[in-house]
Amino acid sequence: MFSTVAIVGVGLIGGSLGMALRERGLARRVIGIPRRIETVAEALAVGAVDEGEIELSRLAEADLVVLAPPVRAIPVLVAQMREWLQPGALVTDVGSTKAELMRSLPPLLPPEVNLIGGHPMAGSEKGGVLAGRADLFEGAIWVITPHETADPSSVEQLTAMIEALGARPVRMDPDEHDIAVARISHLPHVAAAALAEVALDGGSSPELLRMLVAGGFRDTTRIASSPPEMWRDICLTNQQAILSALDDLEVALARFRAALVSADPVALQDAFQRGKTVRDTLLPPARPRS
Amino acid sequence: MFSTVAIVGVGLIGGSLGMALRERGLARRVIGIPRRIETVAEALAVGAVDEGEIELSRLAEADLVVLAPPVRAIPVLVAQMREWLQPGALVTDVGSTKAELMRSLPPLLPPEVNLIGGHPMAGSEKGGVLAGRADLFEGAIWVITPHETADPSSVEQLTAMIEALGARPVRMDPDEHDIAVARISHLPHVAAAALAEVALDGGSSPELLRMLVAGGFRDTTRIASSPPEMWRDICLTNQQAILSALDDLEVALARFRAALVSADPVALQDAFQRGKTVRDTLLPPARPRS
Repeated sequence: MFSTVAIVGVGLIGGSLGMALRERGLARRVIGIPRRIETVAEALAVGAVDEGEIELSRLAEADLVVLAPPVRAIPVLVAQMREWLQPGALVTDVGSTKAELMRSLPPLLPPEVNLIGGHPMAGSEKGGVLAGRADLFEGAIWVITPHETADPSSVEQLTAMIEALGARPVRMDPDEHDIAVARISHLPHVAAAALAEVALDGGSSPELLRMLVAGGFRDTTRIASSPPEMWRDICLTNQQAILSALDDLEVALARFRAALVSADPVALQDAFQRGKTVRDTLLPPARPRS
Repeated sequence: MFSTVAIVGVGLIGGSLGMALRERGLARRVIGIPRRIETVAEALAVGAVDEGEIELSRLAEADLVVLAPPVRAIPVLVAQMREWLQPGALVTDVGSTKAELMRSLPPLLPPEVNLIGGHPMAGSEKGGVLAGRADLFEGAIWVITPHETADPSSVEQLTAMIEALGARPVRMDPDEHDIAVARISHLPHVAAAALAEVALDGGSSPELLRMLVAGGFRDTTRIASSPPEMWRDICLTNQQAILSALDDLEVALARFRAALVSADPVALQDAFQRGKTVRDTLLPPARPRS
């Protein structure tokens, strides 16, 4: 499908992509270009790449370039990559936000490359190539945001690759994507971190809380374990949409607070019911309620 | 272990307890006393009880009475039960909050019964006896809050029953319990409901969001699917501790907002790091970070 794929940034997503491309025979060769030299050996050891180097000059060999560093590192990297890219090369990324990148990258790229933004909706609270899995993308949605100058055949080619990885390509507008993920992913990360942060502030000992932790806390705060640098960057590239979502969350919590202060059973039940209604609309319960 | 156990309120917890007691041969007979007559047939069908009736007079036969209705219904029920309770009977409950009950119940009970509050830290976002499972309590913490007048032998007996169910009895002060669960369980439920509630408020269509929903939203909002009436009641019986936890959550979110408004990378990373530190302290990551 591709001759040489260069993956720039070999962490969980870049590494998993390399494993999946190699396992499924979708590229003749996968070159990994991590930031740190130590990652080369790790990537080779887990079978994420055929070759690894920290030289961007290797991009000259690639017909597909996948940008998989932390999202805020992408523009700087693209500016450094410019001289090495092949005319006609397909350049895509796996960043969690799309609007800012789709505005900042085109002026940094040579006009003859095909830019298609991408966001595979897969991941883990664990980072790094050693946490990579060849099946990470199976069944996942993979959003693509082709730039208007990208050749339709390059869009078809990337779409075919995504499908061959077992994922589902979905073409979207970058702003529409960012507004949706602010609420479905970014705000939950913010709230999970805040919930975890305040767990100890009531004065209970860590030993006691550790004992009492049940499924509710485990699940609501699972993603609070994610790499803080990654979430810092995602927030910085989706500021407005996250602030808007945070506004609404604060309003919802204030309404709940008012209901609890006045011990209003109807208002309290309504607050929980509103959440349940949306939750069950977006994710129908697995088994029928009894 | 017990001759006749009466379970008043046969939902997820009461029903699962009946199944577990019967499966493990811990009671000669389990009588279920649900609120609604229709539940009797359901409880019999799933093997949660040996007999079912909606008559509190059946309590006269019980050496162990387990109160498992919604937590706010317990005091009313206890007032109605008073005349039927055997002298020496052990009375316990499975309510999610303990301080208010341990203050309100003793004056409502005959002096010769042994009151031991209880809270099995097990559950599901699904309610009802049909969702019951005999193994629900295996490995779970089961908090007990014996009243000062309870006979030590009754505490030993309940402790032995909890252990025989595969759970781990932990004796606690009722207030200490409520402060801890406000942060480890109740606030996460409030936040999960609020997060779910605002998911649609950015203008994204339900179809789009349904497609983009990944693990983060699924896990953080799972418990938003819980029965609203139950959570209304829990909140009403743990008002101060939840308000205090909500104060801290709002402060944490306000700090995050300030960091995002000023696009301060250090403050943003710190916010996520604080959450990660506590989360990883309370629930060490399953696999080492790579």
